[in-house]
Amino acid sequence: MLSNYKIDPIILNALDEDVSYVDITSDILISEDSKDTAEMMSKADGVVAGLSVAKRVFEIVDPTIEVEILKNDGDHVAYGDVLLRVKGSSRSLLKAERVALNLLQRMSGIATQAYLYANEVKDYKLRVVDTRKTTPGLRILEKYAVLKGGCFNHRFNLSDAVMIKDNHIKAVGSITDAVNKAKAMIPHTTKIEVEVESLLQLEEALKAKADIIMLDNMDNETMAKAVEMNKGQAILEASGNITLERLKAIGAIGIDVVSVGALTHSVKAFDISMNIK
Amino acid sequence: MLSNYKIDPIILNALDEDVSYVDITSDILISEDSKDTAEMMSKADGVVAGLSVAKRVFEIVDPTIEVEILKNDGDHVAYGDVLLRVKGSSRSLLKAERVALNLLQRMSGIATQAYLYANEVKDYKLRVVDTRKTTPGLRILEKYAVLKGGCFNHRFNLSDAVMIKDNHIKAVGSITDAVNKAKAMIPHTTKIEVEVESLLQLEEALKAKADIIMLDNMDNETMAKAVEMNKGQAILEASGNITLERLKAIGAIGIDVVSVGALTHSVKAFDISMNIK
Amino acid sequence: MLSNYKIDPIILNALDEDVSYVDITSDILISEDSKDTAEMMSKADGVVAGLSVAKRVFEIVDPTIEVEILKNDGDHVAYGDVLLRVKGSSRSLLKAERVALNLLQRMSGIATQAYLYANEVKDYKLRVVDTRKTTPGLRILEKYAVLKGGCFNHRFNLSDAVMIKDNHIKAVGSITDAVNKAKAMIPHTTKIEVEVESLLQLEEALKAKADIIMLDNMDNETMAKAVEMNKGQAILEASGNITLERLKAIGAIGIDVVSVGALTHSVKAFDISMNIK
Amino acid sequence: MLSNYKIDPIILNALDEDVSYVDITSDILISEDSKDTAEMMSKADGVVAGLSVAKRVFEIVDPTIEVEILKNDGDHVAYGDVLLRVKGSSRSLLKAERVALNLLQRMSGIATQAYLYANEVKDYKLRVVDTRKTTPGLRILEKYAVLKGGCFNHRFNLSDAVMIKDNHIKAVGSITDAVNKAKAMIPHTTKIEVEVESLLQLEEALKAKADIIMLDNMDNETMAKAVEMNKGQAILEASGNITLERLKAIGAIGIDVVSVGALTHSVKAFDISMNIK
Amino acid sequence: MLSNYKIDPIILNALDEDVSYVDITSDILISEDSKDTAEMMSKADGVVAGLSVAKRVFEIVDPTIEVEILKNDGDHVAYGDVLLRVKGSSRSLLKAERVALNLLQRMSGIATQAYLYANEVKDYKLRVVDTRKTTPGLRILEKYAVLKGGCFNHRFNLSDAVMIKDNHIKAVGSITDAVNKAKAMIPHTTKIEVEVESLLQLEEALKAKADIIMLDNMDNETMAKAVEMNKGQAILEASGNITLERLKAIGAIGIDVVSVGALTHSVKAFDISMNIK
Amino acid sequence: MLSNYKIDPIILNALDEDVSYVDITSDILISEDSKDTAEMMSKADGVVAGLSVAKRVFEIVDPTIEVEILKNDGDHVAYGDVLLRVKGSSRSLLKAERVALNLLQRMSGIATQAYLYANEVKDYKLRVVDTRKTTPGLRILEKYAVLKGGCFNHRFNLSDAVMIKDNHIKAVGSITDAVNKAKAMIPHTTKIEVEVESLLQLEEALKAKADIIMLDNMDNETMAKAVEMNKGQAILEASGNITLERLKAIGAIGIDVVSVGALTHSVKAFDISMNIK
Repeated sequence: MLSNYKIDPIILNALDEDVSYVDITSDILISEDSKDTAEMMSKADGVVAGLSVAKRVFEIVDPTIEVEILKNDGDHVAYGDVLLRVKGSSRSLLKAERVALNLLQRMSGIATQAYLYANEVKDYKLRVVDTRKTTPGLRILEKYAVLKGGCFNHRFNLSDAVMIKDNHIKAVGSITDAVNKAKAMIPHTTKIEVEVESLLQLEEALKAKADIIMLDNMDNETMAKAVEMNKGQAILEASGNITLERLKAIGAIGIDVVSVGALTHSVKAFDISMNIK
Repeated sequence: MLSNYKIDPIILNALDEDVSYVDITSDILISEDSKDTAEMMSKADGVVAGLSVAKRVFEIVDPTIEVEILKNDGDHVAYGDVLLRVKGSSRSLLKAERVALNLLQRMSGIATQAYLYANEVKDYKLRVVDTRKTTPGLRILEKYAVLKGGCFNHRFNLSDAVMIKDNHIKAVGSITDAVNKAKAMIPHTTKIEVEVESLLQLEEALKAKADIIMLDNMDNETMAKAVEMNKGQAILEASGNITLERLKAIGAIGIDVVSVGALTHSVKAFDISMNIK
Repeated sequence: MLSNYKIDPIILNALDEDVSYVDITSDILISEDSKDTAEMMSKADGVVAGLSVAKRVFEIVDPTIEVEILKNDGDHVAYGDVLLRVKGSSRSLLKAERVALNLLQRMSGIATQAYLYANEVKDYKLRVVDTRKTTPGLRILEKYAVLKGGCFNHRFNLSDAVMIKDNHIKAVGSITDAVNKAKAMIPHTTKIEVEVESLLQLEEALKAKADIIMLDNMDNETMAKAVEMNKGQAILEASGNITLERLKAIGAIGIDVVSVGALTHSVKAFDISMNIK
Repeated sequence: MLSNYKIDPIILNALDEDVSYVDITSDILISEDSKDTAEMMSKADGVVAGLSVAKRVFEIVDPTIEVEILKNDGDHVAYGDVLLRVKGSSRSLLKAERVALNLLQRMSGIATQAYLYANEVKDYKLRVVDTRKTTPGLRILEKYAVLKGGCFNHRFNLSDAVMIKDNHIKAVGSITDAVNKAKAMIPHTTKIEVEVESLLQLEEALKAKADIIMLDNMDNETMAKAVEMNKGQAILEASGNITLERLKAIGAIGIDVVSVGALTHSVKAFDISMNIK
Repeated sequence: MLSNYKIDPIILNALDEDVSYVDITSDILISEDSKDTAEMMSKADGVVAGLSVAKRVFEIVDPTIEVEILKNDGDHVAYGDVLLRVKGSSRSLLKAERVALNLLQRMSGIATQAYLYANEVKDYKLRVVDTRKTTPGLRILEKYAVLKGGCFNHRFNLSDAVMIKDNHIKAVGSITDAVNKAKAMIPHTTKIEVEVESLLQLEEALKAKADIIMLDNMDNETMAKAVEMNKGQAILEASGNITLERLKAIGAIGIDVVSVGALTHSVKAFDISMNIK
Repeated sequence: MLSNYKIDPIILNALDEDVSYVDITSDILISEDSKDTAEMMSKADGVVAGLSVAKRVFEIVDPTIEVEILKNDGDHVAYGDVLLRVKGSSRSLLKAERVALNLLQRMSGIATQAYLYANEVKDYKLRVVDTRKTTPGLRILEKYAVLKGGCFNHRFNLSDAVMIKDNHIKAVGSITDAVNKAKAMIPHTTKIEVEVESLLQLEEALKAKADIIMLDNMDNETMAKAVEMNKGQAILEASGNITLERLKAIGAIGIDVVSVGALTHSVKAFDISMNIK
């Protein structure tokens, strides 16, 4: 799904950052024609994502490296599973290793975390979605990893869906006016989401025919009333202080979507190591 | 410390990613000449880092925004502290908000985590340092945040210090030969670090006059012997499975440096919000 | 609406293309401290768009140039109207002139053409929208000009709305399956459009609850039946061989949207000249 | 003639603009290993240009796509002619389609229009040439298309030929002084063109030994006198309000060159479609 | 003459290369609010060039630095002359110093060398011109410095003048055919230069009406015959093994132009130092 | 040692600069399918460097060109030696020629000059090292060439070693304080160099345990005393007015390192030509 012309600039940037001049260790100590095979091995249980990105790192560093991908993005992997095998110039393997791992570990960390959330709501229609709280420069990789972990994406950026918040409502005067003004201008292909803080606002947003309504920081009881009022008209999204623990309850209430910034802004790298055979 | 010519490309990249075309909500709903004041407020206790980076985001989005920085990078902040105040075009404030927060929250998350580590070893000469396990594209920001949290930096990249590992030793034949071969070629301004897995290897590395010796995955007892053998000759760095809990013990042993990948690869975003007044 | 960080790369690229080394005429013949005032004057009747882009060209070439914008994007202008006034270094004015005009004339040409289409359907709910048939590299400018001429935008690119065409239907098996498969994966903020070639397909797309249905190359009679079948459920978009002449009839039928590639792919530059006073 | 290192940045820019994240339709609905053959077919009569550029779009999107070019740039093609055949990943074909077509249709539109002009003057020595009124960012492609349509290029940019206009003459004092001052400084490889508005100015420009003299907005009678005065000394270029209709008369008068901005600034895209077989 | 949009990328590239992370000395040892005045002083006699480029380095590093230029590009300067004075943040001055000096010293080195050549031929019409043998990435700066030293520029690159050499003649069949084929295709604004190795070839090139004829590696006697044969028809350029010592003789012969690669490919940096007051 | 991802941007930049549009000579006069073999031949005696860079130029211009490298970087070559052989499209060979030669000649010029210095001190432990006085944008190539000529590298840039100079000492108060302050902050992998102007300062720097001490502009007698005082504690580097002639004497004194800006800032291009067979 991720085109090279989208990910190559990210990889080149990371490689450039990791070498100012030469790899002062390997370029001196390892001969130019030395060859090796190395494997990237999972050192934990989780969901892997970013294997084609890691592959691309090796290809960019050295097109003569052979890369074999042994798992699919989205696969559940266990400690000891080999994820990827590379053969080629020893120097090139060592130059690519850290950048490939940094990307793969971060993406797999996100996928693994997303899986925890997705698994929690698997018995409900409830979707867990990401936010714009992604690492600057890595949004396409992180949103992709969220998908591979079983969660879903929210809008990609400020251009592709309307999100009417408090300040917009104040600027225009009312939810109704804001929705109408937006509808009059935006592409017919674009949805409108309105953030509401009360059931009164919800009522207005429903009348204004918002496509999606975000229930901001509501408790479960209020959300239950919101679901009842909604009668399936708009997509209901819960947001704010959504912890893993609350998810099942929210699912049971009948909410459609919860958005969770922590899917991407607070991630533990998934433990993977590269071993030269 | 961070020059604009180093951080501007990171910011421009992040802004570009966050808008494909226009901000389809604010550009439609908020008038071009509307002005606001907004504040970035800490919603947790911790150490802030990246305020000048956040400031720069606003400046790039709109040079007419006035930005006032109210804390210094490295300051301890508490819930409710105002970190930064911005005045100017409402549209511009909303366009800059997410990118500025994403950078500031990540950097402050790292600084806050680093502070935990640094505080743990404050009674020892022991330094906690970062690694190359940084987010691709953000290394200069993350290493800076590590410093502001009270920890220290390891080498910046593959070009600025020699790190002789297992594969290099195998390629050359011995630690001694590897160190000598490196010394014969590298700049006189460059240090040599050798990773050792046993006290036997430590002995060889000491004889070879390595500047720094990394004790890989050693238990405390072995490290204590290493300190004794070293007699202050080389800088001793412990690495591998270093948890916050082990730090004091390692400090007491007399190790000089521990390197901790988690300082940058597994970070919880520090909670900060922007409120329009 | 157009942020500088989105348009600056376009302008820098154009300026770079227009000078390999120096302006071999003005840099030699005009003294460095010569100053002039110049005006961009409309030489035709139409709708202007791109004034802030033209202004930005002068600012980039020389930040000391004073630029005064005398009309708003979207204004109807007549032969002889002064659109923009610039004062400053004569050399800089001449270096910026051609790039500023090339952008302004193209954008105003699009706005003027869009106005013709928009005006034709002003008595109907019918929207005329653009397509992805924009000039490579200038999409944000061209879609903006379409808006300023009174027409509307379609999706910005391949990422921000689903458009199910013939090949996708074949790949999945049926319109129903394609819509369902898409719904199961895409963000809840994303709409689904289906292109249909017959009323039978329309029926299936309606049942599948597509948000938008594109009626591909249908005659007016068939479109009228489509409107009847639709009963306001989906947004109906007509596409293919839509000429200015057919618009009123299509509007009368009750179609919601027509998409017209010619809005951006076949444009006559709007005649504007810069005169040094 | 067009080197990849010149056109790749244009193509990458266009591709990047057309995808923010993924192709949300094809990446979801079409399987990764689906393969297709597609053909680009002319849907009008005209002159094709840009086939190698279109080919390069497919190569960049996916180096495993096989591209067969079936016509040469500059060929006259008719409705139904197949121009280019591509085989490979269905997803990749669909991702490349629009950008490839946008470039090919624009370039072929220019070539087709240029052919009309070139054909009109085929019995005269008169050359029809383009101007700097090209689409920002696409100058090399547009000037190449002009050539393929049978017209010729004017100077490429501000650096490669001197063009002395009204303001330059005023700045220096006289045509004679301007030409002499330029000659004293410019490379010996660079020609000097002077724009004149009267036969008096023409006389002065001839005495000053300008290489090329542009007759600005002159009627045919005046141009005839200019040809007579010139006696083959300078290249005479007519410019301003040159329509297709006037070309033969201007050719008969004996003018050497006419420059026509409309060759590139007002172009109708040439109709080409891509059909998956 | 050199626009910022042409030189900024060169400067940013150089600055980026000179700092991977921070200035590890000054950022640590010098306080952020320390201010200084510094002067760039000539430590030799020669011709200065690049002062506005050096100024721009300081502006990019820190827009708050005040830069005063005390000499003009092209001025003769002596040991001890102050060329440029900068006031502002001490850290910023030190960060900009090396890049500013590297550019200024190289450009002044070229200007100084060019002056030697120019001075040698000052009594003749003979021009000494540069070649395409410039430092990759710095051509616009180096050709500018050549001008400031009193020499002249040859064509800027492969696009702006025809240079027919041995291989082209072989490919087409004869000088006559090559010139004619070129004339039939190139812009009317472009000159044709032919490289000849004998007087026989010269004769053919003259008949073919080449604008410029390069006499390749001819001795003075042959060149004298060439001048005689030419009778002022073409511009005669001597090239190959042209040393400073031969220039006066070549000037006396009546040659128009000599091209000297050494003007840019073999340059001694002009000695300039920056002193903090 | 030089990764493509580091050198490709340099090469692309140089190629772009050498062609604005097309190669107006070869693209017109030489047929697209003409093929040739060409050789790069040394026209002087010296040390070659940059062969893989030159190879990469051809690969980027045209991946179908076959390039055979016949010497190794660092090899001593004599007049007439063939360094590199290329086969492929005649047009591509001519388009790549100048950029490939400009890079190869500059790098070989540096290697050849470095060899002179290295050879002079071959009987001593004395190392001759480069400085940051490199050509902006080419530092990695020039430092590599220095190595291939037998000299050594100094720090790569401002980030990878501390260099305490006069201004830093003034800012902090004393050498001792400056060294201690730096040590407290810099990575444990970074060395500290102190520039001293007297033996008194040397004494202080030694006590402060600087890793490297630069003896600024000292005469041989003073340097001899410095060596004596040093007793092998710090690395001693001599700098300032170091000529080739002084090297042996300095070597005999026992200095460890001399840094010579002229290794890179004042270089004579090594004479190499490309001949089409």
